[in-house]
Amino acid sequence: MQERDGTRDIAVIGLGSMGAGMALSLVRAGHRVRGQDIDPARITALVAAGGQPGAPADHAGALDAVVVVVLNAAQTEAVLFGPEGIAPRMRPGAVILSCATVPPAFARDMAARAATMGLHYLDAPISGGAAKAAEGRLSIMASGGPASFAAARPVLDAMAETVFDLGPEAGAGSAMKAVNQMLAGTHIAAMAEALTFGMTQGVAPATFLEVISRCAGTSWMLENRAPHVVAGDYSPKSQVNIWPKDLGIVLEIAREAGFEAPLAKAALGRFTEAAAQGLGQEDDAAVAKVYARAAGLTLPGETP
Amino acid sequence: MQERDGTRDIAVIGLGSMGAGMALSLVRAGHRVRGQDIDPARITALVAAGGQPGAPADHAGALDAVVVVVLNAAQTEAVLFGPEGIAPRMRPGAVILSCATVPPAFARDMAARAATMGLHYLDAPISGGAAKAAEGRLSIMASGGPASFAAARPVLDAMAETVFDLGPEAGAGSAMKAVNQMLAGTHIAAMAEALTFGMTQGVAPATFLEVISRCAGTSWMLENRAPHVVAGDYSPKSQVNIWPKDLGIVLEIAREAGFEAPLAKAALGRFTEAAAQGLGQEDDAAVAKVYARAAGLTLPGETP
Repeated sequence: MQERDGTRDIAVIGLGSMGAGMALSLVRAGHRVRGQDIDPARITALVAAGGQPGAPADHAGALDAVVVVVLNAAQTEAVLFGPEGIAPRMRPGAVILSCATVPPAFARDMAARAATMGLHYLDAPISGGAAKAAEGRLSIMASGGPASFAAARPVLDAMAETVFDLGPEAGAGSAMKAVNQMLAGTHIAAMAEALTFGMTQGVAPATFLEVISRCAGTSWMLENRAPHVVAGDYSPKSQVNIWPKDLGIVLEIAREAGFEAPLAKAALGRFTEAAAQGLGQEDDAAVAKVYARAAGLTLPGETP
Repeated sequence: MQERDGTRDIAVIGLGSMGAGMALSLVRAGHRVRGQDIDPARITALVAAGGQPGAPADHAGALDAVVVVVLNAAQTEAVLFGPEGIAPRMRPGAVILSCATVPPAFARDMAARAATMGLHYLDAPISGGAAKAAEGRLSIMASGGPASFAAARPVLDAMAETVFDLGPEAGAGSAMKAVNQMLAGTHIAAMAEALTFGMTQGVAPATFLEVISRCAGTSWMLENRAPHVVAGDYSPKSQVNIWPKDLGIVLEIAREAGFEAPLAKAALGRFTEAAAQGLGQEDDAAVAKVYARAAGLTLPGETP
């Protein structure tokens, strides 16, 4: 429970590369943090870094906030409202921050169910990657009522550099996240397409990066991911596997709205092909390998 | 002919929005500039702004440089080597700067033909738009031998803020331009797709621009073109009609190289549809209207 010094009891559910970093940021800010994950080693690591021992569910009534950083909507629903779900055991006035990429309609449904239990709900998808998560410098696209923002404030302060307040309705945050992922995924695939197309015309990847990053064809993703291809370094900063999931969500939402998205669809096709080629756990810049293999090109660091 | 003070005799062939601005930049730098265009009013305007009267062809032997800023490869070949072409009448040692977006193989062919006449040739596609052309602040993706660069230097100095030296072979400049156009066109269409997708999820265009321009989904084109959609201003800074042409060239080059480019192909489809809907002479951000019409959305400044 909240103490005078601002210390909160917080549970982080899902200690993957993002959740683990967020939990550490909360510990560093002085909060009492418990973690939950299917992998017990991740909980041990959090406790070793200053987290509290014990399962969040066993302390549910004392929690001020639960941060849900699982893979998708189904997992989010399960950890909150499933048979072992934590929400029914939380005290009224506590807040749930839901950080997975989910359909906006799902976020609205979760918020409504939380409200029936007297819980605040912040639709709070995250952006920025594992490194920024560990530094407490994420961007969070948040929406929810003023009371939800107020209850979540200490948590947001510890985890985020930038919090976009997208209004009082859950779902708005998830909508903006979907828009951002649509562009981010499309731009990674476009970078890979243009870099390899350039190779067919004699443009070396390093020259591509040097010139295009200073021209109208540049993008945030190009400047962030093309260096991985130039260096031949596909150690996963963000995995290929993210994109069949996230672009799949985007296109599912689009389909339900009767909206045609041919570029995002083409990008999804490239990432799905990358996963099918066994590249799923490599850095998402490895989508360039799909293009290179199809065109018989040898990327930097690869052997012909 | 070159004078001691550095003044050059320069012809600019093609006085459209780019060529007119480039001619003005050359006049401002103190050169004697003659223009050629199918529209006599454009020549009159150049003379009024300090250009020289008379057709470049009538002074071909005195020219130090010819800047070709026409629509495509066919026009470039015609104005240089066609029945009325200027190249055979130029003095040996003069330089041709070819600025249209053309296939790299075409640029190599032009350079070889120029060489047989003792002419220097700089493969010099331009980037930056009409405003920067008029300010002498273009980016130029140039390739050609050292003698071609040396002969072209005063012209480049007057027209460009950034000159990328892409090596001694004509074609390298055009290859990089094709790569840049592939990304630029894809990113404009992606911006339009994401902005309108966001509208189906309740994200207002102004909010889209405010948030995404600060997130990983941003691109140079998004930051440059999305404001046009937000303002409902489709006065052409760069026309829709550019893209069926430039992405067509890109995909033609790709096809010849056996390279599949599904994102650029999807973007070309959107611009082709925009042109078919009568939007060809609007700003290229008007590709958002294709998405909006298909999804029944009302963009800013439009009536439902």
